[in-house]
Amino acid sequence: MFNKILIANRGEIAVRIIRACRCMGIRSVAIYSKEDAKSLHVQLADQRICIGEGPARNSYLNMERIITAARNMGADAIHPGFGFLSENSRFVRMCEENGITFIGPSADVIDRMGNKSQARRTMMDAGVPVVPGTKEPVFNAGEAEKAAEEIGYPVMIKASSGGGGKGMRVAKNAREFEFQFNMAQRESANAFGDDTMYIERFIENPRHVEIQIMADAHGNVAALGERDCSVQRNHQKLIEESPSPAISEKMRKEMNRCAVLAARTVNYTNAGTIEFIVDPHGGFYFMEMNTRIQVEHGVTEMVTGTDLIIEQIRVAMGEKLSFKQSDIIQRGHAIECRINAEIPEKNFMPSPGLIKHMHLPAGNGVRVDTALYTGYKIPSEYDSMIAKVIVHAPDREAALQKMRSALDEMVILGVETNLDFQYQILRNPVFCAGEADTSFIEKMMGID
Amino acid sequence: MFNKILIANRGEIAVRIIRACRCMGIRSVAIYSKEDAKSLHVQLADQRICIGEGPARNSYLNMERIITAARNMGADAIHPGFGFLSENSRFVRMCEENGITFIGPSADVIDRMGNKSQARRTMMDAGVPVVPGTKEPVFNAGEAEKAAEEIGYPVMIKASSGGGGKGMRVAKNAREFEFQFNMAQRESANAFGDDTMYIERFIENPRHVEIQIMADAHGNVAALGERDCSVQRNHQKLIEESPSPAISEKMRKEMNRCAVLAARTVNYTNAGTIEFIVDPHGGFYFMEMNTRIQVEHGVTEMVTGTDLIIEQIRVAMGEKLSFKQSDIIQRGHAIECRINAEIPEKNFMPSPGLIKHMHLPAGNGVRVDTALYTGYKIPSEYDSMIAKVIVHAPDREAALQKMRSALDEMVILGVETNLDFQYQILRNPVFCAGEADTSFIEKMMGID
Repeated sequence: MFNKILIANRGEIAVRIIRACRCMGIRSVAIYSKEDAKSLHVQLADQRICIGEGPARNSYLNMERIITAARNMGADAIHPGFGFLSENSRFVRMCEENGITFIGPSADVIDRMGNKSQARRTMMDAGVPVVPGTKEPVFNAGEAEKAAEEIGYPVMIKASSGGGGKGMRVAKNAREFEFQFNMAQRESANAFGDDTMYIERFIENPRHVEIQIMADAHGNVAALGERDCSVQRNHQKLIEESPSPAISEKMRKEMNRCAVLAARTVNYTNAGTIEFIVDPHGGFYFMEMNTRIQVEHGVTEMVTGTDLIIEQIRVAMGEKLSFKQSDIIQRGHAIECRINAEIPEKNFMPSPGLIKHMHLPAGNGVRVDTALYTGYKIPSEYDSMIAKVIVHAPDREAALQKMRSALDEMVILGVETNLDFQYQILRNPVFCAGEADTSFIEKMMGID
Repeated sequence: MFNKILIANRGEIAVRIIRACRCMGIRSVAIYSKEDAKSLHVQLADQRICIGEGPARNSYLNMERIITAARNMGADAIHPGFGFLSENSRFVRMCEENGITFIGPSADVIDRMGNKSQARRTMMDAGVPVVPGTKEPVFNAGEAEKAAEEIGYPVMIKASSGGGGKGMRVAKNAREFEFQFNMAQRESANAFGDDTMYIERFIENPRHVEIQIMADAHGNVAALGERDCSVQRNHQKLIEESPSPAISEKMRKEMNRCAVLAARTVNYTNAGTIEFIVDPHGGFYFMEMNTRIQVEHGVTEMVTGTDLIIEQIRVAMGEKLSFKQSDIIQRGHAIECRINAEIPEKNFMPSPGLIKHMHLPAGNGVRVDTALYTGYKIPSEYDSMIAKVIVHAPDREAALQKMRSALDEMVILGVETNLDFQYQILRNPVFCAGEADTSFIEKMMGID
């Protein structure tokens, strides 16, 4: 049993973890940067310690200071939240060396799943579907084109060392393949000094659907169903929901099975998410695993009636999962809207500042996870997400209406937010029909 | 389909109903007294109309003005909330005469269940257990004592016209019966000019357990399980929970069955509650029926995943119940604490005033129904209840801990509240053991 947990994070997720600690009778320690001195997480925790000042590398990413703080405060464990150090295996090892439990998976598993091409191979070997493609790297257009023929057009040409869209090209057919391959390879050589390439099938109009899993140290793994996170802007999720309107009951079962298989393959423990891309024909493919709690975990909590943060802490203490797979039933429909202090019309530019007045929605089936309060000054140093509005209703139609109603009621004065933008999505016929794929926002903004 | 609903109430229940209207795409009209001009329900409604000034008889109880307001605003229906006009059959008839749907049962049913002795007889005839007692009035100590022998001691001697504890006496045994009877009869004659008496068995250490029912106009009735409301001060409920720690699964089934029977017997429609008293041996007895939504309805919503206000509105529109009896499963444990602006040490004296600062708990499984906001001035004219904190967790232990955590986090500055008093109850070993009966608060305050 932990006596005290240090929360190595800030904002709403820190508040969320502090509340879970309170529910378990565990004392909490907040860390904070100078900029965050008046933050809600600092006020709510049982103890608090300043560990530097922004930017994050001097505070929330400063491993040595955080470990020292944990030792000085007598914390038995550290909950990393998401972002910051949550997927940093070096930090996990430092925790271990200092006799502090890291609330999350082991350093080895983080490493193993963090390397995307290694993760892809591990999953392929285990029998989890991945996007069809070359198993070994290719180096010239001739052998690459042969691979492309086997895979089937359209294909995605990818640089092994690629990132940020560089060295990535789509070839729609054999005619344009050679040209696109050479372009991509040249880009890669120029950008990364590496001309090693991969060919994958190009998935058109994909959906992003992920499976939440929870595993203990006693060999129990449970899948908690899916979240559809197809509505994204600049690869940042904006709306998440469960169940996904894009998958059948049969696919759901199969995806849950694959997620459990993935977790078992790497001896996973604690909370994790297997992200899949789903094609319009019902095919699904492993994309990556997030070895931490996710922003959108509340959606799963609403439909399954679980508490994933409490479960994370329990599992980290060595306890068994508090539920069996058969206990997990998705009931009703949950939707989350991320409320950001940003200006959607200006390419989602952050809009920090003072909250002059606010009113939050509430009521039956409405949950708002936030660290905001009237008089709070949103610092410019951190992420622009300021609240998560989550609703739960018997079906998707009712959940949509409840979310519209909740956003209608929400008032945030002093900073620009994406409230109106979210409201616009909730009225969009494509989204309402459950047909938004990952290109939805771009299309919506292009049309509107 | 209603286009517009007038809410004939104020405070948190008015806010609750407005939110339900929004979820259904129905426009809402708030009525308010001068004192309530800055109330949240007035701000949230689509339209608003001032109907007078406090006290309530000049505003929220002024039937003519409310009907006129509804007609002027073009409302199809009136939701009465609880208290005020919610069980006033004359008001229901006025709605009917003006072509406005009253969201609740018919005037006849309200009358029939409102007369407590008639309701008792109706239930007895239907086979719903009532506290054993005389069927006909008794007039002298001799025949009364014979009845008492049959019923079994201890007995409660009650004046037919009694109220407020007057003309009510307990006789523990035959020896003291005559004395107590004569005392009670004299009291009744003096107070009410009526010496008609009843004898009932005296239930020692009773629990208050009630069953929520919901009925449509198509003959469908569903019981939504129980709420234990034994924790009361001056006959006002303070804490409600579901499931009740005092009843077995067998009793629950039987009480649900009796509640449905009661509703069917009087052709009940809309939301209603059958209140029972439960003796320490597992006997339960019909006490009365509340022909309206209750303060504590949220507890049932949390464990059953329903929305009783939306259901009320649907049923009033002539729709069928959205669930079958078999859909109703109590999941986990919910507890509600009523937060009042009052001073428990001074016999719960109301403490109205300005809310200088507040922070509400929130998060997974925490719901706060309130109309409070920072800067709001609680008027002295109305009820002292200012918020309902409702938590939901997998079991009672976890729910208790979550409630402690929620109240710990809650801050209300500017007025005295019963927050500490509630917290004290949540730490009390008798309450924590699930053993609080209706005398719990008196005993707790006597001991502490």
